[in-house]
Amino acid sequence: MRIPILKLNNYLLVSIQTEIDDQTAIQFQEDLLSKIHESGSSGVVIDLTSVDIIDSFIAKVLGDVVTMSDLMGAKVVLTGIQPAVAMTLIDLGIDLRSVPTSLDLEKGLLKLHKELGA
Amino acid sequence: MRIPILKLNNYLLVSIQTEIDDQTAIQFQEDLLSKIHESGSSGVVIDLTSVDIIDSFIAKVLGDVVTMSDLMGAKVVLTGIQPAVAMTLIDLGIDLRSVPTSLDLEKGLLKLHKELGA
Repeated sequence: MRIPILKLNNYLLVSIQTEIDDQTAIQFQEDLLSKIHESGSSGVVIDLTSVDIIDSFIAKVLGDVVTMSDLMGAKVVLTGIQPAVAMTLIDLGIDLRSVPTSLDLEKGLLKLHKELGA
Repeated sequence: MRIPILKLNNYLLVSIQTEIDDQTAIQFQEDLLSKIHESGSSGVVIDLTSVDIIDSFIAKVLGDVVTMSDLMGAKVVLTGIQPAVAMTLIDLGIDLRSVPTSLDLEKGLLKLHKELGA
């Protein structure tokens, strides 16, 4: 399966709502980066509200995709990170301190607006 | 797999980007209706931009989900219907004439705003 990526104005929205396996995660990374490229989006919100648990591979892919998007010029905001996921990320040493986060999708979009000064 | 449903303010956003089988379609119908119920959303945008082709079963489920959401008090806007999909819907006699449609997600949201007088 592929994780759907929605384009809304100048932003891309992604909501991860199923448990994702390694293949899906890699596919998502590719899809998101090409979508950023083709749509010329300046911001991405990745909503993790429905993600209860992540493993080290998915966590690494997530960290990478944030850095890669940044490199391409698109700011990423992560939203809805649950306690268990936050703990896993820290335990695994995935450094997302420079990544803006928000409680939910709406707040994430507002934060993007602010970050991008739009 | 499940089709992710995003909540954005008072609306729900759905983007169907994979070929869906019958089971996924039924699951989507259930998921969307319960999400409308629990979130109290007043509008739904279903984006079909990435759907190249639909069969009679999926078309029927789609027609039903629009009517059901309407019954529950949530207005549905369909966006990004491709030529082949439009032809299939008409050929199959699925009557979506009363359903507002738009070219893309952004325009769909604007249309919802207008329809709901918000």
